[in-house]
Amino acid sequence: MESKLREIIKSISAADAAAVKAAEERQAKLAKPPGSLGVLEDISVKLAGITGQVKNRVDNTRILVFAADNGVVSEGVSCTPRSVTASQVMNMTRHKTGMSTLAKEFGCSIEIYDMGIATPYNGTGIINRSLGAGTANIAEGAAMTREACVTAIMTGIEAADRAAADGIQAVGIGEMGIGNTTTSACVLAALTGSDAQQVCGRGGGLTDTAFEHKKEVVARALEVNKPQRDDPIDVLAKVGGFDLAAMTGAFIGCAKSRIAAVADGYISTVAALCAVRLCPAVRDYIFLSHASFEVGCRIAQEALDLKPCLLLGMRLGEGSGCPIMFQVMRAACSIICDMASFEEAAINDSYLEEIRRIDGFTVKK
Amino acid sequence: MESKLREIIKSISAADAAAVKAAEERQAKLAKPPGSLGVLEDISVKLAGITGQVKNRVDNTRILVFAADNGVVSEGVSCTPRSVTASQVMNMTRHKTGMSTLAKEFGCSIEIYDMGIATPYNGTGIINRSLGAGTANIAEGAAMTREACVTAIMTGIEAADRAAADGIQAVGIGEMGIGNTTTSACVLAALTGSDAQQVCGRGGGLTDTAFEHKKEVVARALEVNKPQRDDPIDVLAKVGGFDLAAMTGAFIGCAKSRIAAVADGYISTVAALCAVRLCPAVRDYIFLSHASFEVGCRIAQEALDLKPCLLLGMRLGEGSGCPIMFQVMRAACSIICDMASFEEAAINDSYLEEIRRIDGFTVKK
Repeated sequence: MESKLREIIKSISAADAAAVKAAEERQAKLAKPPGSLGVLEDISVKLAGITGQVKNRVDNTRILVFAADNGVVSEGVSCTPRSVTASQVMNMTRHKTGMSTLAKEFGCSIEIYDMGIATPYNGTGIINRSLGAGTANIAEGAAMTREACVTAIMTGIEAADRAAADGIQAVGIGEMGIGNTTTSACVLAALTGSDAQQVCGRGGGLTDTAFEHKKEVVARALEVNKPQRDDPIDVLAKVGGFDLAAMTGAFIGCAKSRIAAVADGYISTVAALCAVRLCPAVRDYIFLSHASFEVGCRIAQEALDLKPCLLLGMRLGEGSGCPIMFQVMRAACSIICDMASFEEAAINDSYLEEIRRIDGFTVKK
Repeated sequence: MESKLREIIKSISAADAAAVKAAEERQAKLAKPPGSLGVLEDISVKLAGITGQVKNRVDNTRILVFAADNGVVSEGVSCTPRSVTASQVMNMTRHKTGMSTLAKEFGCSIEIYDMGIATPYNGTGIINRSLGAGTANIAEGAAMTREACVTAIMTGIEAADRAAADGIQAVGIGEMGIGNTTTSACVLAALTGSDAQQVCGRGGGLTDTAFEHKKEVVARALEVNKPQRDDPIDVLAKVGGFDLAAMTGAFIGCAKSRIAAVADGYISTVAALCAVRLCPAVRDYIFLSHASFEVGCRIAQEALDLKPCLLLGMRLGEGSGCPIMFQVMRAACSIICDMASFEEAAINDSYLEEIRRIDGFTVKK
């Protein structure tokens, strides 16, 4: 299985340089000061590099949600009970959570994968790829085997493949899993060499004491497992989670299928970093939605050397920023597809002569 | 005329405190960690204060564009010829500029006011409220009379009144006027006591030499005119423009009609500040779209004590960020209207018993 993953990674190519150049040339011809539409211009150029076409649209979108429980919750790192993973996944199928409410409003489809939810739920509308009733407790040992980690990554790739086959133009990569800000902190620390103090945030809303405890658990998980910085699969297997591993695969899969992938929030951005560490070309396919409230997210964004577009102070997770980010991408597409070039915008002089205004120049009181 | 304006200002009341409280209470009941949707929560609460209703929608939107020329262009403060004001206004009516392309994509209506365009154009679709062929050169004297300034403000109020009558739920306030980053810099400096070095940016893209010259012109305009900091009408009349004055009126008019107003970019944010200095309650009606590239914009945002939502490096003007900001506001409305409360989200235990999952807990390889 891992050899198949390595083959996929080897097959992924970076942005289409010719399409990037053609898109930059078109942006330069549009009737505006060069660069004045900032990130909207950058997004349109990046999308061209992904699809190989100058003119793209982001109308068909999907949010992939990878849900799993985390054994580390038994250390008391979260203020939310573990059963909320299952109940929120069910609420997503009913469009009642934050992300799924916004997805419905903006017409994004949702696909939810059970990667290892620990408590029972009604499975309607949820794709079962469970690797177990949550991971093992990373404060005591590895979260999962290396084989399980590769399986989870392959599931993420499969989800992206399916999105591409369905004509999806941009994928948002979300999650649900109580305890996954703790695993994300461990993975980020392992990949960047940061320490527990730097990568930990308050997740769903911890007290001071619980926050200190969370940092101590992260430090212990790193000490016990000694994840290998240069081997992201080792890092994910030892201190990650089923959700994080599948999300990593989804980013890789989007690059494989040449569709745009949106990283939204802390956990998603850490998964994006894992994907880029496994395959640097994946970076050309990733867009960051919002500047997360979680401090570690900034470290992950800097490690990716990518910038977020939304300043909304969100920290709900799920992929809740994706539906809004898709609107920003839609705006970027509209500019490069529909705005006039300098040539098209120029107003013919004889036309002007003809319609010379009669009453516009007198001062009115 | 000024006494009528003073009456309108006196009639404006601040946010509806009861509706704000009710919206905060509803946000606290939604199934998410408190505050986890950040600015989306704040926007929904602010909208409640504006309309007096907890549940609002931002589906019917309009961008008001106030276009005018500025006499100070003869000092060489802009790299773009004055005739571009007229040609871009025409391109707006054809949905070919940045703002109007995005407005079309997202279904926002546009209303364009000629407040004093200096060169001829085809007037179809443009509302003529011209106060002259551009203002006088502020480097030599006042831009306009106090009376003309009040007339321009009243025109902005009229435009907001019309939007409210048309059932518009949020108004974006945009502009077109070569030279208006220079007038905005002067107005901002006068209102905040900042100096020319702090408030000047490169506008449409000035060279180093031209940029130094622009700062010198701003300093001269302030020195020649001595605008009175505590009298925003005096400031607008002496160192502002027909566009800035009308935009100021539009912000006041939105508050009068109790509809949301979006300030987008440097010039619009300076106009919002003028409106708030004339009538502090107007602040409760203003939303900031993007963090502008122009340095002075940050000073204006801080003076308003409001935060932008988009991080898009835009500096095109026109109100080009408004169509995207309306999507953020639409998202905020969807959350407070459609998301489940904790009560609605809770999953019944007997229901769970019934649907207990059969095959989800075995490890798959």
